[in-house]
Amino acid sequence: MPGAGRARRLRPPCPKPPEEPPAPEEEQDLLLAAAYVSDAQYNRNIPFETSPRAIRLYYFYNHWTMRVATYFFICVDLSLALFEEPALFPVPFLTTSLVEVLCLTAFFGRLIHFAKVTPQMVFWKDTKNICIMAAIVLTLIDLIIYGSLEAVNIHSIRWSRVLRPVFLINFPESRQIRRAFRSIRNTLPDILYVFLLFMFNMLIFSLMALKLFGDRNLKTVEGSAYFTNILEIAFELYVLVTTANSPDVMMPAYDFNWWYSLYFITYLIINTYIFMSVFLAVVYNNYRKHLKNEIRKLAYLKRHKMLEAFNILKVKVGTEFVVKEAQWRRLAKVVAPDISSSHLELLLRISDEGQKGHVDKMNFLRLADLLNIQVVTVNIKRHPLEAWMPRLYQSSTSLWVQKVVRHRAFVWVYDVIILINAIFIALEEKNPFISYAEWVFLFLYIIEILLKLYTFEPRVYFGRKQFWNWFDTLIIIAALLATVATTTIQPARKYNSQQILDIVLVLRILRLLRVIVSIQRFRVIMTTLINIGPAMLTFGGLVLVVYYVFAIIGMEVFHGKVRFFGPNATTPDALVCGNPALKDSAFARDKYCKNNFNDLASSFILLVELTVVNQWHILAGGFALVTHQAAKLYFIGFHVVVVILIVKEEMQDGKLIDNMESKDSGFHGDDGDNKRKTLKGLYFRIASKKWLPCQASSSTRRPSFRKASLYPGQLLPAGPKHQFACAFLLPPRVQDCGHLAAADV
Amino acid sequence: MPGAGRARRLRPPCPKPPEEPPAPEEEQDLLLAAAYVSDAQYNRNIPFETSPRAIRLYYFYNHWTMRVATYFFICVDLSLALFEEPALFPVPFLTTSLVEVLCLTAFFGRLIHFAKVTPQMVFWKDTKNICIMAAIVLTLIDLIIYGSLEAVNIHSIRWSRVLRPVFLINFPESRQIRRAFRSIRNTLPDILYVFLLFMFNMLIFSLMALKLFGDRNLKTVEGSAYFTNILEIAFELYVLVTTANSPDVMMPAYDFNWWYSLYFITYLIINTYIFMSVFLAVVYNNYRKHLKNEIRKLAYLKRHKMLEAFNILKVKVGTEFVVKEAQWRRLAKVVAPDISSSHLELLLRISDEGQKGHVDKMNFLRLADLLNIQVVTVNIKRHPLEAWMPRLYQSSTSLWVQKVVRHRAFVWVYDVIILINAIFIALEEKNPFISYAEWVFLFLYIIEILLKLYTFEPRVYFGRKQFWNWFDTLIIIAALLATVATTTIQPARKYNSQQILDIVLVLRILRLLRVIVSIQRFRVIMTTLINIGPAMLTFGGLVLVVYYVFAIIGMEVFHGKVRFFGPNATTPDALVCGNPALKDSAFARDKYCKNNFNDLASSFILLVELTVVNQWHILAGGFALVTHQAAKLYFIGFHVVVVILIVKEEMQDGKLIDNMESKDSGFHGDDGDNKRKTLKGLYFRIASKKWLPCQASSSTRRPSFRKASLYPGQLLPAGPKHQFACAFLLPPRVQDCGHLAAADV
Repeated sequence: MPGAGRARRLRPPCPKPPEEPPAPEEEQDLLLAAAYVSDAQYNRNIPFETSPRAIRLYYFYNHWTMRVATYFFICVDLSLALFEEPALFPVPFLTTSLVEVLCLTAFFGRLIHFAKVTPQMVFWKDTKNICIMAAIVLTLIDLIIYGSLEAVNIHSIRWSRVLRPVFLINFPESRQIRRAFRSIRNTLPDILYVFLLFMFNMLIFSLMALKLFGDRNLKTVEGSAYFTNILEIAFELYVLVTTANSPDVMMPAYDFNWWYSLYFITYLIINTYIFMSVFLAVVYNNYRKHLKNEIRKLAYLKRHKMLEAFNILKVKVGTEFVVKEAQWRRLAKVVAPDISSSHLELLLRISDEGQKGHVDKMNFLRLADLLNIQVVTVNIKRHPLEAWMPRLYQSSTSLWVQKVVRHRAFVWVYDVIILINAIFIALEEKNPFISYAEWVFLFLYIIEILLKLYTFEPRVYFGRKQFWNWFDTLIIIAALLATVATTTIQPARKYNSQQILDIVLVLRILRLLRVIVSIQRFRVIMTTLINIGPAMLTFGGLVLVVYYVFAIIGMEVFHGKVRFFGPNATTPDALVCGNPALKDSAFARDKYCKNNFNDLASSFILLVELTVVNQWHILAGGFALVTHQAAKLYFIGFHVVVVILIVKEEMQDGKLIDNMESKDSGFHGDDGDNKRKTLKGLYFRIASKKWLPCQASSSTRRPSFRKASLYPGQLLPAGPKHQFACAFLLPPRVQDCGHLAAADV
Repeated sequence: MPGAGRARRLRPPCPKPPEEPPAPEEEQDLLLAAAYVSDAQYNRNIPFETSPRAIRLYYFYNHWTMRVATYFFICVDLSLALFEEPALFPVPFLTTSLVEVLCLTAFFGRLIHFAKVTPQMVFWKDTKNICIMAAIVLTLIDLIIYGSLEAVNIHSIRWSRVLRPVFLINFPESRQIRRAFRSIRNTLPDILYVFLLFMFNMLIFSLMALKLFGDRNLKTVEGSAYFTNILEIAFELYVLVTTANSPDVMMPAYDFNWWYSLYFITYLIINTYIFMSVFLAVVYNNYRKHLKNEIRKLAYLKRHKMLEAFNILKVKVGTEFVVKEAQWRRLAKVVAPDISSSHLELLLRISDEGQKGHVDKMNFLRLADLLNIQVVTVNIKRHPLEAWMPRLYQSSTSLWVQKVVRHRAFVWVYDVIILINAIFIALEEKNPFISYAEWVFLFLYIIEILLKLYTFEPRVYFGRKQFWNWFDTLIIIAALLATVATTTIQPARKYNSQQILDIVLVLRILRLLRVIVSIQRFRVIMTTLINIGPAMLTFGGLVLVVYYVFAIIGMEVFHGKVRFFGPNATTPDALVCGNPALKDSAFARDKYCKNNFNDLASSFILLVELTVVNQWHILAGGFALVTHQAAKLYFIGFHVVVVILIVKEEMQDGKLIDNMESKDSGFHGDDGDNKRKTLKGLYFRIASKKWLPCQASSSTRRPSFRKASLYPGQLLPAGPKHQFACAFLLPPRVQDCGHLAAADV
């Protein structure tokens, strides 16, 4: 569940001081060690001072409320662009500037907090802090200049808005986005050579085109001169690399003589296909190289921090230094306050395999990785109804109902119902009988959910990883609410609330997606897609930064140059998007007037269109006409940046490839639960692929859980957690590690 | 050099019987063993009979003349489509059918030859042979039916032409293309599920679009109804996945309400970006899996064949079976008749490390791989001029000239000359002074080549791997010839020969590419591109097959429906491409009349345009208008096939990624040659990356050439040979293996 995953990522790094107070000295040490372990667990690399006050401030700094507050202010600061001129929702300049000052104060406060935690020297050497400070100062200067000019009615440029993503990137929380940017920066030198060669190649081809076609008096479809100006040719050939003007740019020459098509085909093969391959290869090679270094560095830092923690807590037993079990327990409780006692017991048994009452160095160093393994505690309980009214629940009728619900045919029946529903949706809903049918379908779906809740344990049904059960239930409840709302609103107000009707419709159709759940192969693909969600978030952050900067620049440069007059306007002004320069242009002919930079939403949609690439030259041409030919550089720049980003990320999708192999281990309704029914007690399910070896050793009496475990750094810090069907059965009270046998694989 | 590479691939598998005749029995054994080794070397897996006659026939079967003849007839058969109706160069039906029968006879002869070589049982079980026979029979039937109908003036369909690529695929020579097809077939089942899920998703979105936009009376830019028919919506949404109609399909809904853009953005993110990633991941996973199996199988077969050869030649020495040195030598001479005696000596020293006079089993099994290692024999000789007139060549003036030519500045001066040349080309050549300058530049370039030939040893300068020296010289000679031709033809005939002028122009501009050579990083990239040439050939074969089949089908279905009336025709007929059905269509408006299926060349160009994807929906729409809406299925089919193929091949470009790491080891002119000057004698340069370990062991006295060598199957049979800068110095007469030290690394 993406929601649950996000909540987990934000909250856990907030170890509270332990409840029972030991000696204050000792407690201080414990807190320091816990801070090191926590940093190792989340791969935080913030050097902090070790004075008691600094440690307390550091805990506060990492507290989830502080991090949420920081993100909140970043969001507010970024979304100010919606309310500033050119605004989607206009608000006076005074309001937005006050809010911005508030945000800047918050950022400054966070920075001061950080300065108190980290040593002075480190603080001033860190470019991230310098960047934030510079951005704050520059924004304040800009606000003052703009405000005072505005006061005397001179309209100037709010140039500091471009700096806003700096806050998103440079706070320590955005480690993933920074890493992505860093890896892009690392590939730049190598890419540059390929790009230069590509440019050189393009120039050679441009020269050839000028010589071959320039003197032939050919005309384009629009009637303008064909390939007579070397700059125009270079632009057209750049567009051809993106294939956006593919056959059109060739047609005049091809019409003249079919041999000339060979020129364009050669160009496409060399520049679009071969160069793109080389480009991808360079990016991928670089990515691999730098990833290796980064992992090595992370592993080293993690080990270093765990060693620090060990050195604080170690005591000498016999010839070796160890950490006492009680101390270890308290440490784990501080680092992960939410850990269940059975989970803690499990980790202790793994770390202290010989049950000697202490944890040795090697095992201690592994603690951060052990805590990172997502162990899903599957607690098989009796159905609450079974507890409340055992007689009724175990009656033959009730058992028959449960058997029916667990049967495969139950799924098939509902698949058929969904298909019938699809047909009903496709038909016109003006027919009163059909709109009536909607209620029947809703009723059937609700019955299904209730029956499932009756048969399966509700807490298991709505377990953390049961994405599809949540999806089902939420869609149905939303559809129910929305349908009730429309039927009550519509007759009463007679006001056709467009938005609500559309939402009802979309919800009704989304329901059809449930068919996917009943086909195993489809479920695997969907689960894969859900698993790469977190990786997508980093990518989203990256794209947001680039979009935001380009949108702000675009709004300053192109604002108001192109206007939209409504879908049915036919005035001469509307036909040229309110700008005579667009007369007879492809931009106006294709009715692209609404693709403009007149507010943040329009700008973002336009940038999405540019990302999709098709027709980007028409858009670029339009904005070049209303300003200057140099405006095309803005669009070429956007294309280069986004292609590098997207290509890059596409390559990182090794993540996706790795994910494909993992099996779906969702809630299998009829089979999984049935099997588990026979086993009562606690299950732990391990949510990482790296543990696969334990599957192989499941037959041995003593599970070599330890041998199969991790080297420091072998578990990557971020990225999707792989749900992996290797479960460990643990008797309700762990007494002997020998019981720790793999089951339910 | 691609040319040399191709020639090498065709020729070597033709071991001639050895010159000196030993006992006939023994000679027979040697031939059989050599056939096994040769098969292992080239990964041929043809089971042949071991009777003396069959072996001789097998040698003949693998002879290069036979293979070239087969390829020749395949080419003739495929190119018949140029001369058949609808023809690019019309020729009477009788001629083409006679040529076709000739080709079929040749194919049949080749098949008979194969049947004589291979055991009966194997022959009839091989689907390849059955396919060829079926294709021959069907083609003959079709020819007879078509011919007799033509005789009574009934025009029917030449359906058997679609079968022609069968011959290209199914002859044993096209192993690479068959392998590519097989790997596509292997991924199909897995791809199918993703495709089905994608289709389901598309239908859900189509339904949503119908409900959201169908009743709003929206109009497209062309004025037709927007999103009212579910089939049309599905087609538009399929086109949107290819991004070909990107902003246009969204504009009416976006103009109506900007919220609707979210529908299209969601669709694009899910179906274009996410699904494509999943698709790529599935293809890549499958490819990796099957590649591993294929390599394992190849390695097994190779080892098996080498064992067979060993068992034929082995004699017992002491306790172990070995192959005597004399026998080994004769075997190698039969397998590789062109091998130089020093190269043979090198291989023997590696195989018989202990100089015991025989080769043991383990070393013998490695022979096929050893022969596959491209060892470039660099024989440093004195410059011929030095031999002919030592005085003059060693005179101080001559030495000064050589020093100048070897100097870096010499390269820079010529780079500047090239840039000046580029400027002259860019300027108008109407100016008589500038057209005169052309001669000056040509003169300067010729001087450069002559100076280089004076300084460097000509046979080294025009070495097999010196791509750029060949490129330089050929371009200059061609430009010289063409320029002379135009200047003599033009005034004499006053007939402006368009083609020759264009060629001169292109040659003149291609010369500018020489700048690339002087920048090391560029040279590395270019060398990489040249190295992946052979892999591209397989890809080309694959694409040719798909294109041919689709072109033939397209010509039969769409021939004559769309006509082109010349570039400047303005008759009403010309504006609708000769077909009233195209009135007001986007196809006619964009002047796509020349994009038709009226001959093979036009069809291929159209298919290239479809491969580039952009505007493919306009082309599909046009041909659907002149025939039937179902014609769109042809275009969708082509898109699916080509995307699968191209995507697939793009993934195989792991080859490209691996290649990137290898360094350029071309002719470095000033530095490499200088260093080598001090060392006289024979060099071997190894052209494979797998030998990299020998670089690490270069400091040891005894080079662990043997330890670093190959396991069977570790060297892949096909693909680009990596030129790798690890050279072995071998004294002119090898006496002791201890001298075999790595040098010039």
